This record gives sequence, structure tokens and C-alpha cells, in this order.
Amino acid sequence: MTIHSNIFNQLKAYQLLKKLTQNPFDLTGSGSLTSERIQRLQCRTGNFRLLYATQRLDEDVLNGLQQLADETSAVEQFVMMKKGAVMNRINGYDSENRQVLHTACRDVFSDSPAEPSAARQALDELDKLKIFLDDLDQEKLRTPQGKPFTDMIQVGIGGSDLGPRALYHGLAVFQKEGRKVHFISNVDPDDAAGVLRGLDLSTTLVNVVSKSGTTLETLTNEKLVQAAYKKAGLDPSLFFVAVTGQGSPMDNPERYLRSFYMYDYIGGRYSATSMVGGVMLGFALGFDNFFEILKGANAIDLAVEEKDIRKNIPLLLALLGIWNHNFLGCETLAVLPYSQALIRFPAHLQQCDMESNGKSISRQGESLSYQSGPVIWGEPGTNGQHAFYQLIHQGTTVVPVEFIGFRSSQYQQDIEIKETSSQEKLIANLLAQSLALASGQKHENPNKRFLGNRPNSVLMAECLTPRSMGELLAIYEAKIVLQGFVWNINSFDQEGVQLGKLLANRLLDHFSGMRQDKEYDGSSQDEAGWAMLQAAGMVEGLKTKS
Amino acid sequence: MTIHSNIFNQLKAYQLLKKLTQNPFDLTGSGSLTSERIQRLQCRTGNFRLLYATQRLDEDVLNGLQQLADETSAVEQFVMMKKGAVMNRINGYDSENRQVLHTACRDVFSDSPAEPSAARQALDELDKLKIFLDDLDQEKLRTPQGKPFTDMIQVGIGGSDLGPRALYHGLAVFQKEGRKVHFISNVDPDDAAGVLRGLDLSTTLVNVVSKSGTTLETLTNEKLVQAAYKKAGLDPSLFFVAVTGQGSPMDNPERYLRSFYMYDYIGGRYSATSMVGGVMLGFALGFDNFFEILKGANAIDLAVEEKDIRKNIPLLLALLGIWNHNFLGCETLAVLPYSQALIRFPAHLQQCDMESNGKSISRQGESLSYQSGPVIWGEPGTNGQHAFYQLIHQGTTVVPVEFIGFRSSQYQQDIEIKETSSQEKLIANLLAQSLALASGQKHENPNKRFLGNRPNSVLMAECLTPRSMGELLAIYEAKIVLQGFVWNINSFDQEGVQLGKLLANRLLDHFSGMRQDKEYDGSSQDEAGWAMLQAAGMVEGLKTKS
Repeated sequence: MTIHSNIFNQLKAYQLLKKLTQNPFDLTGSGSLTSERIQRLQCRTGNFRLLYATQRLDEDVLNGLQQLADETSAVEQFVMMKKGAVMNRINGYDSENRQVLHTACRDVFSDSPAEPSAARQALDELDKLKIFLDDLDQEKLRTPQGKPFTDMIQVGIGGSDLGPRALYHGLAVFQKEGRKVHFISNVDPDDAAGVLRGLDLSTTLVNVVSKSGTTLETLTNEKLVQAAYKKAGLDPSLFFVAVTGQGSPMDNPERYLRSFYMYDYIGGRYSATSMVGGVMLGFALGFDNFFEILKGANAIDLAVEEKDIRKNIPLLLALLGIWNHNFLGCETLAVLPYSQALIRFPAHLQQCDMESNGKSISRQGESLSYQSGPVIWGEPGTNGQHAFYQLIHQGTTVVPVEFIGFRSSQYQQDIEIKETSSQEKLIANLLAQSLALASGQKHENPNKRFLGNRPNSVLMAECLTPRSMGELLAIYEAKIVLQGFVWNINSFDQEGVQLGKLLANRLLDHFSGMRQDKEYDGSSQDEAGWAMLQAAGMVEGLKTKS
Repeated sequence: MTIHSNIFNQLKAYQLLKKLTQNPFDLTGSGSLTSERIQRLQCRTGNFRLLYATQRLDEDVLNGLQQLADETSAVEQFVMMKKGAVMNRINGYDSENRQVLHTACRDVFSDSPAEPSAARQALDELDKLKIFLDDLDQEKLRTPQGKPFTDMIQVGIGGSDLGPRALYHGLAVFQKEGRKVHFISNVDPDDAAGVLRGLDLSTTLVNVVSKSGTTLETLTNEKLVQAAYKKAGLDPSLFFVAVTGQGSPMDNPERYLRSFYMYDYIGGRYSATSMVGGVMLGFALGFDNFFEILKGANAIDLAVEEKDIRKNIPLLLALLGIWNHNFLGCETLAVLPYSQALIRFPAHLQQCDMESNGKSISRQGESLSYQSGPVIWGEPGTNGQHAFYQLIHQGTTVVPVEFIGFRSSQYQQDIEIKETSSQEKLIANLLAQSLALASGQKHENPNKRFLGNRPNSVLMAECLTPRSMGELLAIYEAKIVLQGFVWNINSFDQEGVQLGKLLANRLLDHFSGMRQDKEYDGSSQDEAGWAMLQAAGMVEGLKTKS
């Protein structure tokens, strides 16, 4: 397979779009946001619709963005990815050289999956998961004292934490009676201590998740949690399950009640629909609800094959993002869900997007001469309206916004106050913000002026359910990957995390050094590191303690 | 009082610093991060030290930043603020015209407070709080069934939620046995439903917090929670307490067990040390711990009077931020605490900073010709290392970082694995990241190259306690305010939130319109709003339902 090697800012579409930036659509004019425009600039995929009349674009820009997608064969690359192409590589240099097949985790509804062997592996793990969950439900699998398991601690970090956690919060309303999940991720010992406090370990499963089986934080926390079980007189091997790569140091049935596999073709940040999310979500929500998540995600993976950007939400979101970032010069993107359940979804996107597209070289190893991924951040509305929205409306920086909303609430517990329900107030606020950011406001008092022309879009569905949660997850996964294809970067590795690990190990050597020798002095081998430890008060601290 | 009217980019210091940007200090050179530099570029205030050798500056830049602080009388303005000057105003235009006296909430340890009448009011509220908490402890105040109260729901949004919530999470380890707090903020009805599910209302207090007594979300959620109490056969007035402005619609003793006051000179985002945080934190942690928070905050408010930027952490942080933002051109700031307990602290800072300094006009009503506040975001480390750090290290955007760390853990439950404790691993990672971002790495494989010169600093203290939490809060409050003084903006109003409210009310009128009249059509009065409702599927939805 040859990797596409387009240079983004030398594309014809780039030149065309560059010209169009001289006069981007003005959203503040009195006749700008017409009913016709709002009706026309809509796109539907799966159960979602995207309203994008409040972006700074016209049909010329849309045509240019379509050309950009076509010239870079973005959709074709996505299809190649699903079929098992080795997309995770840098041509001509040492790199991970892997397939990218998170889509296979949910390609389990068709007789002819895009990559049959990976889909087969996904089905095998789903079968194991079904048996595990049935055993729990039927109490074939019980605590040593014969009680049902009530709680699960997910021990994992990064992709083994953020995606699963976002989905768990998103779908808490669907939680099975008497089941609850907790998360330990940080190597900060207070993370584990805080979670363990007040938990009844004797009815709590622990799910340890690490693809490599060597993640520092996860192994450390596993040991810490094991110690707590032993202290409580409990045998960890009767409570611990594992999700890891086949053959990893953690792939050891003697230590775990059950083991589930993920494969090297699934990147951590894309792993929520693999067993990384499956075991925990299955425990909390039941197998059927997890299966619904997969159905939603798969529906999107299929819909992404549509090449018309006006009919493909992930592709359109990808190109709108590029328009705002590379052409209109906005450095960040706020993702603002009007749904409290999505409180951790922006944190998941921070990883999925910024770890994927925060790159400086092309897939041919050349330094980029254009911007790759933006900074992603966000909190739920309406909360944000009482916080950082001030800057979005009146700051000196333009922050593009992606709103997310649902017509119905999850719990359906609502009351009407002043003739409207809370859910209606929520949606009215969402749509009002979209309009206010776009249109702005003139005023004789300069403090009441709003410049407007703040680009934004609104992603809407009926209700946040397992199905639509799966769709939403896959919409963003696809958006991110498609942007990477257009920018011609490798969205699937993460070399940028290595240097910190290396330096951390060097600093840890100083701690062991000090522990072994009170007179230890690391300044000759590592001047900066040793000086930082001293400046931070760590040397003094340790020497006084020991 | 005259408000300072300096124009930031016409200051002498600005011109000087502008020249110095041509050749900012290179952190990547082999002899750059010397032990001498790391020792020298340290600052101490209260229990904190700031390490800033990993910023791109030398003594010339520091002198320039000192001059910037001096020329704008930043510290003098802070002192004026504490003494009650009317700093919340725009000269020559309608504006809030208020004093800014959140510092008075903790100016309760001296015989000569900066503003005696506000300090007197703070003491009065503290007395009321002490009585309330004693009554709870001694069970003079009990549930109608004679049981002690175990839980509290804080109903509030924005400043009545984010700051208090950040502190509650930060200090969870100090929670009193058998006491727990929950938060409802969002008008999303699922926020309340999710919190109410599984709570025993018969032993739960509700603290309703709104300065104006008119906040839409808070009043709506109060009614929603009241309905749940009534449904459970409980009389809300025996469970509800209030924090509000004197004379507000909520200042009604018949509806609340107890009422506490906040004053119009305390902005919501600066209100965590007023009764807005006090009632909830006092309930959860006890009065003494809340008093310790105040002590820490007050110590910082006093230390900010130091004019030497090399000896004043909040001032130095403010100026370093301005160096990176206005001179080195970085649009965002990541605040990354290496402490899981501080998980909600960045969300608090998003409000406190972005709502304060996300402004486009000066205090004289002139449009700014320079950047004001940056976009603030962050998540705890080491979690972030497995997520968005990729972009910080190798992305095309430079993101300045403020790290926060503590030498000791809170729970003191730790184990040594491979000769080091988790806490040591945590701090080693923090310091390693600081160094890695600064120094970068050369490599023949372009994917293993790190450009370095990513400016950052490290804020360290011994342990996260009520005292140091109060200090940390006040350090950032002061930093934000001082930046506003240098930029000559009003950091205390939030006009930018008004337009959205206005448009939301118009949309809500459509909902009531549709409810009253099935044939209702709002397109003639409000083309854009009505079209957005249709595009979002809300019109269809409502008409089908009713």
C-alpha cells in the first residue's frame, strides 16, 4: 500500500480556499441568518443532524472544502483503513507500522465485514464477554463468600480510562440495579486511596486494562489495589479480571479470573468499543446496551463512506474544523455538550483529537509548514454560560464552538416552570448561544457590543441512548481520522509521550539513589534534573525522612 | 477615585519587551538549564514556591516585566481594590459600579482590616455559620424525624458551583465522618435527576445559592428539588438553607431554615471564600477547616502587596502569563495539577480567568488593540500525559503550561514499587515533563524530535491541605486580577453573558406560544430563532407531543 503524500498547503483546493478567506461570510448582517440558510445548511447522518448555518461559509467555501476532501481522497483512505491498510506508519522511518482497525470492534453486524479476521477476533471477545456477564447475572460467578458482585474498579489510564469513563457517565441512567463502576487512573496515590475509601472490596471486581501490560501507572495502581485486597484478607486472583494484548506480561490466567484481549491494531484512544470499554460497560449497563453502542458506532463507520460532504456529518465536521483552524486562523475548538451526562466527553476528545493530530511531521517525515490539530476543550452547557462563555462572546480570541444537544432528557423527570420545561430551557439556551455567537449585537455602550462572527455548529439527536452514544463516539473518531488524512499526518502514533517517560525514569533513579545512599548527589550525571529535584524541595524532603 | 487608564501597548515597558521577543531565551541549548539558573529562577510566597527556569526569559525580560508591573501600578491597584475602591466599572458608560471585596471575606485575622465594614460583614456571616454548624454537630438542628443530617445538595451555577466544587474535591480527604455533598447546577433536568437518584432526602439539606436570587438555572432546580421533597412527603422549608444577597427575592426566612448573605461587592467567580463556599465546605469539612482556607487565602492577599515580581508569586505568574500571551503569541494556557484531588480546579479557573479577562474594551470603553485573557484549560497529570500531552510536546501550536504539585500525598497511603513510591513517581513525572517541554530532543528520526522551548513553570507546596488550598485559590484570584490591571480592563463584570440570555428568552416564548396554540408560527417576529427551532426538530417534536 502507498500512503497518500499530498502536501496540504500545496493542494489546488487549498489555494482556492485561501482566496476565499479574504471575505468570509458575514453572519452579523441583518439578512444573513435567513430561514432559507438555516434550512439549507443542515446535514443528517444516523440519528444526528448537524446545523451549520452559523459557520462563516457560503456555497463557494463548501465547494472548496469538498474539493479538499476529494483531492486528498479522505473518504477512500478511511475505507482503506477499515479494510486493514497499514495506516499507522511514517514512510522511510522507524515507526509502529500497524493496521488501524478500531472500526472492526463493531463490524460485527454484517456477513461481509471490511476486515474479516479482525472482525472475527472482535466476535470472539464479545462471546467471552457475553459468557462473563451471563455468569455474573446468573451468579455462577460470585464472590468467595457466595455473594453477587456489586462494584467494579476500572484500573487504566489514557485510552483505558477517558473513553470508557465518558461513556459510563453518558449512560449512567441505563445502569443495572445494584451495579456501580469506579475508576483509578492517576499514579497519584490519592486517586486510589480516595476511590478505595468506603468501597466494600469483598463484592468488588477489579478490571485492569493495559494493552502493553507495562503501563507504569496501571501496574503501580494494580499493585496498590492488590495490597488493599490482601490487607482485607481477600485473594486478588478471585476478584481481578484483565484486558490486555495477547502475549503481554499481563496475559496470565493464573492472576486473573478472566482475561480479554485487545489487539495492536486498536489504538488506546480509539479503544472504547473494544473490550477496554466493553468489560466495564457490559458490567454496568448489561451486554445488550453495550451491543447497542457498537451498533451505533458501526452505523457511522458505514455512513462515512459517503463522499458528499453535505451528506456526511463526520466528513463535514472535519472540513469545517479545517476551515476554521487553517483558513480562519482559530487555534482552539470548544466542544460544548448541552447534556450533563456528557461531562467527561470533552476530556475524551482531548485525548482522541490532540493525541491523534497534535503532530509536526507528515507521513513522509517532512516538517509541516501548516497547522495540524487544534487545542480541544469544553464543559457542559448551560454551566459554561455562567463561566467561560464571556470570553467566547467578547474576548479578543475567536473560539469556534461545536455544540451538542438532545431534544429529550434521559430520566424524563422534568417540570414546567413559567410554561416551559427544564429540557426546553436547556435547548432554548443552546440554540440562543449559537445564534448570539454568530450574529453579535450592536450597541451604543461598548460593553454591550458583541462582534459576532464566532463560527459554531449544533449537533442534535433525539436522546442520549446507548445507540446515539455509540454514534456520537464514532462521529468524532471519524472526524479526527479524516482530518489527519487531509493534513497527511499519522493520527495513530504518539511519539510525543516518550521523552517525558525517559526523563521521569532518570529522576526516579535519583530517588532510589538517595534511598540507598544518604550522601547521593546526582548533579554530575544530570545537572538539570537534580537541580529541579532540589528546587522542588524533594531532595531535602527525602533526606530528612530517611 | 480615578481608574488607571494606561494603554498596554503604548507603555514604555511594552516597547522594551517587544524588542526582547526578537531573541527569547533558548531553553534547548546544552548549557541552558544550568543548576544556577534553576536555583535562581525561583520565587516563594506563603507555603508555595514557583520554579520558572523553564520559561523563555532572562534577567532583561524579568526587568521589563517588573517595569510593566510598576508602570501600570498593578500592586497599588490591588491594594486600592482591597481598601474598597470602585474597581468594577467602565468610565463614562453605564456599568455595575461596584467595589470588589472578595478579599474582605478572609480579612478577618487582623485588628485593622483593609476595608473594615466589609470585614465586619464577613465576620457576622462567619458567626452565623459557626452557630449553624454547631447546631448540626450538637444535633440541635436535626431532621423532622430527629436524625442528624448526613448529606447536602448545593444548588447553584457558575461561581456558586465551580469554585466550591473544586475546593470540595480538593479537600475530600478532610471530610467529616458521615457527611457528603452533592451538586446540582445545570438546567439540564438530568443533572438533578441523576443526583437525586439514590439519595435519602429525609437526611439531606439543600443549600440554594444565588446572589441575585433570580438565576434561571438555580431557581428552576430549586423548584425541581422542592418537588422531589414534597413527593417524598417532606416539607422543603425544614431542609432548605439559602445563600443570597440581602433583600434579594430569595432573602425570605419563611422558606429557609437559615439564610446567609453575600454582598454585591463579591463577584460570583471570586465567591468561594464567602458563604457561597462557606456553608457547604463548613458542612463537609467542619468550621475549623473552612477557617484554615480563609487563613491561607488571607496570607496571599497580604503577600501580594510585595512589589518585587521576583518575590511575589501571583504577580510573577501574572507577568509570565502576559509574556507568553502578548509577547510570545501563545493563545492558550494549560493548568495541569499533578494531584487528582484538583480535578475540578482547572474548570474553576476557566470561569475565574476567562470570565474576568475575556474582554475587548478598556476601562475607558475603548476597543483593545492587544490581546486580553487567554483560553484556559487543563486536566490532572499524570492522566494528561496519556492524552493531550502529545500535542503540547509535538504539535504545531505552543501551549504554555502551569504545573501544580505537592511533595506529599493527602491520604499517606502509598507503596514502594521498584524502590520508589507512587508519590515519587508522580513528582518525577511532573518535573520530567517540565524539563522535556523546555529542552526538547534532537533525533535523526523526525518523529522522535521535540522542538522544545515550550514555556512552563512549576508551582509546588508540601501538601494539599485547607491552608494551602486557600493559598492556591487566592494565588490564582490575584494573578487574574493583576493581569486585568496591567491590561487595563474591567475583570469584574460579565456583560458577555447577557445576549445569550436575551435570545434564550425569545426562544422560550416560542415554546409557550406553541403550547398555547398548535398553529403558532414565530417566523414573522424572529426568523432566525424560529428556523433554528425547526431545524433542531423542536417544533415538530413539541407539536407531536401536545
